[in-house]
Amino acid sequence: MDIATLRANHPDHWKLATAIRALAMDAVQAANSGHPGMPMGMADVATVLYRNHLKFDASAPHWADRDRFILSAGHGSMLLYALLYLTGYEQATLDQIKSFRQWGSRMAGHPEYGHLEGIETTTGPLGQGIATSVGMAIAEKSLKARFGAKVVDHKIWVIVGDGCLMEGISQEAIGLAGKQQLDNLIVLWDNNNITIDGRVTVSDITDQRKRFEASGWTVLACDGHDPDDIDRALTAAKKAKGPVMIDCKTIIGFGAPTKADSYAVHGSALGEKELAATKEAYGWPYGPFEIPAEIKAEWEEIGARGAAARAEWEERLDALSAAKKTEFERQMDHVVSKKLATAIRAFKKAQSEAAPKVATRKASEMVLAAVNPVIPEIVGGSADLTGSNLTKTPDITDFTPEDRKGRYIRYGIREHGMAAAMNGLYLHGGVRPYGGTFFCFTDYARGAMRLSALMGVPVVYVMTHDSIGLGEDGPTHQPVEHLAICRATPNTWMFRPADVIETAEAWELALSSEKTPSVLALSRQNLPTLRKTHSNANLTAKGAYVIEEAAGKRQAILMATGSEVEIALKARDILQAQAIGTRVVSMPCMELFAAQDEAYRRRILPPGAVRVAVEAAVRQPWDRWLLGERGSERKAGFVGMEGFGASAPAERLYQEFGITPEAVAQKVVSLL
Amino acid sequence: MDIATLRANHPDHWKLATAIRALAMDAVQAANSGHPGMPMGMADVATVLYRNHLKFDASAPHWADRDRFILSAGHGSMLLYALLYLTGYEQATLDQIKSFRQWGSRMAGHPEYGHLEGIETTTGPLGQGIATSVGMAIAEKSLKARFGAKVVDHKIWVIVGDGCLMEGISQEAIGLAGKQQLDNLIVLWDNNNITIDGRVTVSDITDQRKRFEASGWTVLACDGHDPDDIDRALTAAKKAKGPVMIDCKTIIGFGAPTKADSYAVHGSALGEKELAATKEAYGWPYGPFEIPAEIKAEWEEIGARGAAARAEWEERLDALSAAKKTEFERQMDHVVSKKLATAIRAFKKAQSEAAPKVATRKASEMVLAAVNPVIPEIVGGSADLTGSNLTKTPDITDFTPEDRKGRYIRYGIREHGMAAAMNGLYLHGGVRPYGGTFFCFTDYARGAMRLSALMGVPVVYVMTHDSIGLGEDGPTHQPVEHLAICRATPNTWMFRPADVIETAEAWELALSSEKTPSVLALSRQNLPTLRKTHSNANLTAKGAYVIEEAAGKRQAILMATGSEVEIALKARDILQAQAIGTRVVSMPCMELFAAQDEAYRRRILPPGAVRVAVEAAVRQPWDRWLLGERGSERKAGFVGMEGFGASAPAERLYQEFGITPEAVAQKVVSLL
Repeated sequence: MDIATLRANHPDHWKLATAIRALAMDAVQAANSGHPGMPMGMADVATVLYRNHLKFDASAPHWADRDRFILSAGHGSMLLYALLYLTGYEQATLDQIKSFRQWGSRMAGHPEYGHLEGIETTTGPLGQGIATSVGMAIAEKSLKARFGAKVVDHKIWVIVGDGCLMEGISQEAIGLAGKQQLDNLIVLWDNNNITIDGRVTVSDITDQRKRFEASGWTVLACDGHDPDDIDRALTAAKKAKGPVMIDCKTIIGFGAPTKADSYAVHGSALGEKELAATKEAYGWPYGPFEIPAEIKAEWEEIGARGAAARAEWEERLDALSAAKKTEFERQMDHVVSKKLATAIRAFKKAQSEAAPKVATRKASEMVLAAVNPVIPEIVGGSADLTGSNLTKTPDITDFTPEDRKGRYIRYGIREHGMAAAMNGLYLHGGVRPYGGTFFCFTDYARGAMRLSALMGVPVVYVMTHDSIGLGEDGPTHQPVEHLAICRATPNTWMFRPADVIETAEAWELALSSEKTPSVLALSRQNLPTLRKTHSNANLTAKGAYVIEEAAGKRQAILMATGSEVEIALKARDILQAQAIGTRVVSMPCMELFAAQDEAYRRRILPPGAVRVAVEAAVRQPWDRWLLGERGSERKAGFVGMEGFGASAPAERLYQEFGITPEAVAQKVVSLL
Repeated sequence: MDIATLRANHPDHWKLATAIRALAMDAVQAANSGHPGMPMGMADVATVLYRNHLKFDASAPHWADRDRFILSAGHGSMLLYALLYLTGYEQATLDQIKSFRQWGSRMAGHPEYGHLEGIETTTGPLGQGIATSVGMAIAEKSLKARFGAKVVDHKIWVIVGDGCLMEGISQEAIGLAGKQQLDNLIVLWDNNNITIDGRVTVSDITDQRKRFEASGWTVLACDGHDPDDIDRALTAAKKAKGPVMIDCKTIIGFGAPTKADSYAVHGSALGEKELAATKEAYGWPYGPFEIPAEIKAEWEEIGARGAAARAEWEERLDALSAAKKTEFERQMDHVVSKKLATAIRAFKKAQSEAAPKVATRKASEMVLAAVNPVIPEIVGGSADLTGSNLTKTPDITDFTPEDRKGRYIRYGIREHGMAAAMNGLYLHGGVRPYGGTFFCFTDYARGAMRLSALMGVPVVYVMTHDSIGLGEDGPTHQPVEHLAICRATPNTWMFRPADVIETAEAWELALSSEKTPSVLALSRQNLPTLRKTHSNANLTAKGAYVIEEAAGKRQAILMATGSEVEIALKARDILQAQAIGTRVVSMPCMELFAAQDEAYRRRILPPGAVRVAVEAAVRQPWDRWLLGERGSERKAGFVGMEGFGASAPAERLYQEFGITPEAVAQKVVSLL
């Protein structure tokens, strides 16, 4: 539908949608930076969505049963900001819009979760939004099954662009959502046929409708500038089978006289002249950031449209038993159950007595077997490595279209999609997710793992087969740089537990975390229980601690993590036999150790002794502890990996790469 | 087709295929580790492929015009190893098969490029093979256009499994190949309906045929155990339009009495009992690793089948002009043209005089404008950020189905697919690829970037917008940990040039590299030319050098990279004004600096001075240079990032995050 017809036939709609377009143009112009074309193109779809369909109440951004709206094409952030301002979200003021993309603004270049109420997830890295939304849709289904449709019954709406759909992660999301038949997920495709490099056809000829249908989606279509047609499609989508994709044919930069329908309007300000000409074409005689009061009032009515539904929902919530309501709110708010600490304490006590020799992946399974039954909001899963990651416990069943109470997700061979879905599961509220794959495939999931850290979403990555210790599968499957990668990433707890006790402590911390995701690097190979003296205190919480003290004068300190703590302890035996007093420090989490005060760090790593670190990985993160702490000595060494691994049985690899007690002891002796 | 029918109707085929199956079973059994099910399932398809279709000569594994065979489902490595042994590849001995997955064997758990002739690329991380193959297919088209179909005319055959097709990277590959209409690419889908977690339908219901068709592929199908039907499909595929996917319906672990058609046969040895029963079912009375001489001889005939074609090809190659033949061989063998050094030298001379103030991304474009016209094997591209990465030079046109001489690939919004395709472009021979995206989206490409490093494939990643200096797009687009990530990755040169001269030097090294991929982190913001004295020597080759000496007694050494070298130099001005003698070291490549001898490193970083490093990124990789070198002092500091960035203009971000000349000078003063 062209502008003239739209203005003539839909004057009420037109002024509402134009308010969005004007704000987007003005804000990008003022910042002289940003993406006006997408908001201008999708304003009609968004207007119909917010006006007629989206269940929300601008005065209650955290209403648990609201529909979620995800702008997967995050560069079009002004679309979302304009909607939040116009409908009356308290934090979304006009001043914020005026400070779009400036220091301290809630309205960043891309929507940043936590900066502004109404932003459901951080988007910008393309494809993350749609993949995160799949997790939200699963969370909705899960909570509905557990608490009933009276209190949980909403949709997840997602706007995606061509960029989102070209990213591989979108296929993982489409495949997972299709398999799970998530009919609460509705994807609105901004089909404008433009990417940064030109027409989409410059790089892609995919028939997106056919592609979505191939994975079991219902596909609908509409003219993205015809309010009636949009409304028809959105109405149909809410009743359709399976997840729904609506092909919304739009024009990027709709109405810009010289720049519409071209990449020129994608990623930079229109320029004063084109902006004025566009407002002229819109019949919008208002100055920058000027929204006539009656249009603002109409938008605020839309923002209040859901208030009655919310009030009714509050009543339904109150009608639940007190215990159920409390539990619902606890889970939605991610309040950690006291049962966690109790379960972990009992587990540690039993295991420090049993002292099993098990792989830490197995230890992790044992912890989960103790925790999953008492923490109902935990939803686990694996990217098709269940029997290797040991992520499924007997008490939980698969989450499927037939069993929405299932708490185990078969993510398929989709590490990136899994990580993004985990973010969505948590962000939705009511779910604390974990998911497993091989540690090396952190590589595949990096994009979403970084967003966990950036958003402060405490999901748990269960990364097994954490070193050359995995053996024969060889270097493609053997992480050597991945500990360094996770440790270099801000706001990430990289745990590498040494035994069953540290594994339990790491899990306790990971499941109690409020703002930091955790990565658990777990061994394939069996490891002895090293902490045989039970302590209720969580020693892993300190990041590092003395696991074995030096006998006699302390001449050396060995530091290690995970499977190498055993090696360090054996090296200590060799050194002590030579009367070299050797302390062994287990350092399951460098980030938590770094967060301790200097006095504690100095107590664990006092000056005056040779320091040697042992880890079957690259040295990069260790220099700080070897050399960087006040009082440390120049005499320091590292036993680990200098390059990629190889294919052979694990014991042979440790020998060949020289990660042995003898080599560690030798290193100490040579430094003394 | 069931075993009885197959044996009865196709006895010749049967014994050939059974030799593959037997070797796979025996090798996995001997290693007690590996994946027998896939080779057992795909043996029939592979037999027909090698027997009737694949253009190869086992005595000439490096024949430039051979068909490439890629086992994307790399866990089925024994399929490939068996084929290479049976057809008579010299390196693929029976002893190697017997040492499958053992230390020192050429036959690793997954096929490792460089370990064994006949392995065209490393596979194992799922989806990499198919995405790498797309690059090989592009290389074939490019070379054919440049050198003619008489010397370049072959196919790329790929076996993929369900795992490959669930990985997002496969969609990027499918989309790119479809757009490029690569009719030399034939994908054989091992459609066995089994993944590690069970039936494929546990996690996916995608109609793969429809999905490939949606991206412009021709889709064929066959019974993967019926030689005639396989042959019919493969014959049709060679003449079909566009890239071709053949849906080969197979049974995993074909013929194993209790384990066939289940995940039990996917990833572990059959066990002696099942193995014996399977051989019984096969009518294969031979012991472990025993292949009857006549069957081996038949296979070797197949291995020699292409010898005549190769001889004819050699004649056609000889019929080229001497210059053209030499150039063809130079490009296929990746011999660096002398024109590169000449072009770079002239460029550096001109630029050190002109001393432009340009972003290093712009400097990179200027270098490419000088280099691309004289190095015809360079093929550039970008993941839909051409105008931002500045990766396209005026002399090269787009590679399209209509213009196969084009040397610029519009990869689309497919960072991972691009990186894998670049690996394939190089591995094919005849092409030296570079490709661009934002540095932050290293995250998306990590899986394939790691393989570049593991394989020793010297592709060039042009990563622009390399820090908070990109400004308003905010933290989702601002790398802070990515320098650390690349530096932690073995066999990777992480360049961060400070100006136009260092950019040229980095490009020279990257384009001359024989075994190491390069990552160029380039600024969005303008930077002054700092190296105004022309030197023919490539100072960047040393990794670090003194860019400004201390005046008077040296009390401080500042180290920096990229955009922060300018800041370090300004800090030096402040310090020198306070009579604090300050050396500034530019360190564009830590890996190359680490590779220098200790004498050089000590000359650049002598003892006795305070050291401060400046980099708008996390500290992790710097501790070594601040603290770890012999003779360095405890007095060291870092000015950089401690967490994620923010959305605001770049200058403001540098101020707010305290990465300023004043802060650096202050740090030095506080340490003195």
